[in-house]
Amino acid sequence: MAGTDHRQKRDLGPAPSVVLVNPQLGENIGMAARAMANFGLMDLILCDPREGWDREKAEAAASGAIETVKAAKVEPVLAEALKPFHYVYATTARPRGMTKDVMTPEQAAADMHARIARGEKIAILFGRERFGLTNDEVSLADMIITAPVNPAYASLNIAQAVLLVGYEWFKPVATTLGMETQELPALEGPGLQMPGTRPATKDELYGFFEHIEGELDAAGFFKTDDKRPGMIRNMRNLFARAQPTEQEVRSLRGIVSSLTRVHELRKLKRGE
Amino acid sequence: MAGTDHRQKRDLGPAPSVVLVNPQLGENIGMAARAMANFGLMDLILCDPREGWDREKAEAAASGAIETVKAAKVEPVLAEALKPFHYVYATTARPRGMTKDVMTPEQAAADMHARIARGEKIAILFGRERFGLTNDEVSLADMIITAPVNPAYASLNIAQAVLLVGYEWFKPVATTLGMETQELPALEGPGLQMPGTRPATKDELYGFFEHIEGELDAAGFFKTDDKRPGMIRNMRNLFARAQPTEQEVRSLRGIVSSLTRVHELRKLKRGE
Repeated sequence: MAGTDHRQKRDLGPAPSVVLVNPQLGENIGMAARAMANFGLMDLILCDPREGWDREKAEAAASGAIETVKAAKVEPVLAEALKPFHYVYATTARPRGMTKDVMTPEQAAADMHARIARGEKIAILFGRERFGLTNDEVSLADMIITAPVNPAYASLNIAQAVLLVGYEWFKPVATTLGMETQELPALEGPGLQMPGTRPATKDELYGFFEHIEGELDAAGFFKTDDKRPGMIRNMRNLFARAQPTEQEVRSLRGIVSSLTRVHELRKLKRGE
Repeated sequence: MAGTDHRQKRDLGPAPSVVLVNPQLGENIGMAARAMANFGLMDLILCDPREGWDREKAEAAASGAIETVKAAKVEPVLAEALKPFHYVYATTARPRGMTKDVMTPEQAAADMHARIARGEKIAILFGRERFGLTNDEVSLADMIITAPVNPAYASLNIAQAVLLVGYEWFKPVATTLGMETQELPALEGPGLQMPGTRPATKDELYGFFEHIEGELDAAGFFKTDDKRPGMIRNMRNLFARAQPTEQEVRSLRGIVSSLTRVHELRKLKRGE
């Protein structure tokens, strides 16, 4: 299926950002960039790529999508990388033992289009070559994407996973471009009603997480250090699932401040 | 997206055959075999492969799908290779100047399932790396498949083309295997994964509401009586939207108790 029309504009409007988490090989970064270009995905973020990853091999593998690799942002910490986004999808091969929703690439694409139409910024996480995303990384996302794959042979490399998700993203775009005569997937998602407000950014949400976790630390909520990460993950999953608005995040912070007020007053009394 | 269950049977019933026409590189043959295995496609035909193509590289690239490469039939002449089939699809990047119908991979998959259910034998042609299928080769097929791809960057390699067509073929198979619930609504009540727990009852949820609202009353959170009902409604909406599990409701109560602990301690001290 070769054939590129170089007169065409490559940018097809707002689209999800692709975040490769801890990628190891330049070739895979390049192949992922190529799959992105196939489907109008422009923004590539490399989170904690292996030190000394081979930029030349990446650009060679990217072929015509070399600009995507050149323009890739590198960010060492995933939570930092996700701060500008309103909604984050994590791709995994199998459902994880987590209370988090799972969508197929097709369902996720319809959801992404609805969100982007509402002005949300979207990121999709793809894990490292060997073992995908860790549970902690998945817990930073709002939704899991799992492609239906033969359970007897379920391994997809990064570029293939990007290809399938990008393909589903692009289908409705192709339709609006008049590239095919296909039924448009339902673009009108349920769409939260948010009069006078907007979805919280990850930055705002993480700010709340740090706030409540700091107070819970102070209150001795996490009994043991080894239980702390799992408890925090579960709590973050729960709040992220509610997809709070910016206003609601401020309310949540107000609630935490209020509940801990006496705590603070006592500190003041003690002159701390 | 790694993760293979080796106990699973790989053969998922009758499926289309994949015909690689004049492939040049062993690696690409191997990668195509791998994409086939991902989606339950078993039968690989190599039509006029380049003389001396590297079988070792093909098997290395095939990874777990090595049997598919080993079992591949080699046939020098396309018209001969296609003799056992009832219906043949040709994949091309662009519609050709030919009086032949074009389908998307999705439309073609539906058509293939209908034909295979009627007992037809189906083949899908994929062209050589550099320039795809010749017009003569396409003319041997009954139907063209063209994937919707960004016209500014339309090149897909063989394995990627196999992946997209295989993916669409497999979607309905996955559904019949119960691997997914296709009709997943986007935001409200998608199938939550709740390992070892269950959705909270309203009773449990309301118990939490009373708990947190009581504590917020005690902390003076609701500044004025007339604002109280609206604030409570918003807060209840937020927590209800997360659809917490029974376990999570208990955690939320633990969080509230923890945050207000000092408050309680002070009450105890005062002998209240």
